[in-house]
Amino acid sequence: MPIGEFELIERYLSRLGAHRDDVLLGIGDDAALLRPPPGIELASAIDTIVEGVHFPVGMPAADIGHRVLAVNLSDMAAMGAEPAWALLTLTLPVADEAWLRDFATGLHDLARRHGTALVGGDTTAGPLMATVAITGFVPPGQALRRSGARPGDEIWVSGTPGDAAAGLAVLQGKLDGPDAILEPLRQRFLRPEPRVGLGLCLRSMASACIDVSDGLVGDLGKLCESSGVGAELDSTLLPRSSAMRGAVDPEAARRFTLAGGDDYELLFTLPPGSDTGLLQRGGGVAVTRIGVIAAAAGIAVDGEPAGRELVHGFDHFR
Amino acid sequence: MPIGEFELIERYLSRLGAHRDDVLLGIGDDAALLRPPPGIELASAIDTIVEGVHFPVGMPAADIGHRVLAVNLSDMAAMGAEPAWALLTLTLPVADEAWLRDFATGLHDLARRHGTALVGGDTTAGPLMATVAITGFVPPGQALRRSGARPGDEIWVSGTPGDAAAGLAVLQGKLDGPDAILEPLRQRFLRPEPRVGLGLCLRSMASACIDVSDGLVGDLGKLCESSGVGAELDSTLLPRSSAMRGAVDPEAARRFTLAGGDDYELLFTLPPGSDTGLLQRGGGVAVTRIGVIAAAAGIAVDGEPAGRELVHGFDHFR
Repeated sequence: MPIGEFELIERYLSRLGAHRDDVLLGIGDDAALLRPPPGIELASAIDTIVEGVHFPVGMPAADIGHRVLAVNLSDMAAMGAEPAWALLTLTLPVADEAWLRDFATGLHDLARRHGTALVGGDTTAGPLMATVAITGFVPPGQALRRSGARPGDEIWVSGTPGDAAAGLAVLQGKLDGPDAILEPLRQRFLRPEPRVGLGLCLRSMASACIDVSDGLVGDLGKLCESSGVGAELDSTLLPRSSAMRGAVDPEAARRFTLAGGDDYELLFTLPPGSDTGLLQRGGGVAVTRIGVIAAAAGIAVDGEPAGRELVHGFDHFR
Repeated sequence: MPIGEFELIERYLSRLGAHRDDVLLGIGDDAALLRPPPGIELASAIDTIVEGVHFPVGMPAADIGHRVLAVNLSDMAAMGAEPAWALLTLTLPVADEAWLRDFATGLHDLARRHGTALVGGDTTAGPLMATVAITGFVPPGQALRRSGARPGDEIWVSGTPGDAAAGLAVLQGKLDGPDAILEPLRQRFLRPEPRVGLGLCLRSMASACIDVSDGLVGDLGKLCESSGVGAELDSTLLPRSSAMRGAVDPEAARRFTLAGGDDYELLFTLPPGSDTGLLQRGGGVAVTRIGVIAAAAGIAVDGEPAGRELVHGFDHFR
């Protein structure tokens, strides 16, 4: 049943996500009207995901709806911001009601869990892609930046990076094995979990923070460049999920962990001697120390400079 | 010369637009950090333009950069908001430096004129399209909404709607004539001028406002639906540019004016007897009274119900 654009937007994209009292006017006018709380700073980011570039062709609509919000919530997490308001644009080759309903459900469920309201939307005909612009709140001066790491700081990471890249390999038919082992990896790719709670815990602790979207070594390189430092990673400390250990040999696991993308874990630095008890208890995800910040530029892994295949990360135009 | 994504963003999209003291951290981290002024409301909108849908294939890059910001500034104008911060995502089939430079210039020039800073960006490989999310400021309770029109209110419009649609027809080779007549129309399509100053003037005056992006009758229909009213237009009052009068016969001009899109003029309602002297002097564009709000639903033109070909507007999925 073909239906019109405005009707589509009205039906599936209005009233998505959390109800918030600071949304004075939501979807349906030329702009949303929002009331920021007094005395805060706003953190604001935008990210697009494109079919065939950021997710495989034919990925379920609910996973796409989840993903486009998750990658933006992850930016809020990396800043230590509390997410509040999201705007969405969705480009679709055809107006398919079932697809839109599933997409809306995936986005809605994640938004509600993070107290985020969808306050504006725009749907157009075109190749399948989605963009979210997100805004969150941070107390003045408490945002986590990439630029604060100092030599001697410990390098920490949340979760088990590499699982998402291994999960993508599963989806692409490049990894074989029993379903009980492969399914958790597939889920880590399909349903990345933004580490918003951990980001809030890190506000008063971390000297620098970034989310791991393009690969651990690549994103650590960006953090180091912003901070004017280098890093030494110890690959024996890298966290590995039992699924990863069961699915591939140790050398492949090392590569996935260091160079895989799409995990949306947090990579952060702590001054030496920081009390990490709060993080372990309150962040909602395990965190692991994996190395130390060095004065000299460059990333070393087990004493050797990281090669281009690790640093590369995910760069759409190379 | 192929160059990497991050380098591309760094080089062409950082420091675009106005410098603003309320931008604490711009492009280069996981999110921008912004300080809203105390006691204001935020107006926030997002719009995508897609090659082949919202602009013709092969349109110059500078015009595309102008356009993606202009359509969003127009949303700020329609709310009576003062634009402040913009986020951009750009999807490109290939990384072309000359194209990017021109795109950035088009966006930058318009942003500077409207005091808007580009505070975040994301560039990905994909079909040519661009999205801007924009945020502006409004004093509490003063935003212009679509929903406040009352029977008896006068209907006004800025500029000369229809010129952009005629300009697109020129670009598509569907309109012939001397260049001196066609060039102003072409420019009205290529370089829409968001009516931000007029929107600010309307804050204390208009009962309702919308921008004309999909066609005058279609957008008036949305305003009326939001307000629970109808409208009577007098086509003899419709403003016509000298270019329009020179390019087409009166019947074609009437159609372009009532049903053409892409003008980004403001369509607004004023309580009867409003003093429009301030608008005429301060809005930066001529404004014209074209009809009156009625109690009964529906749009009439010269006493006849507007047909589907006028109401239709620009709906991507029909």
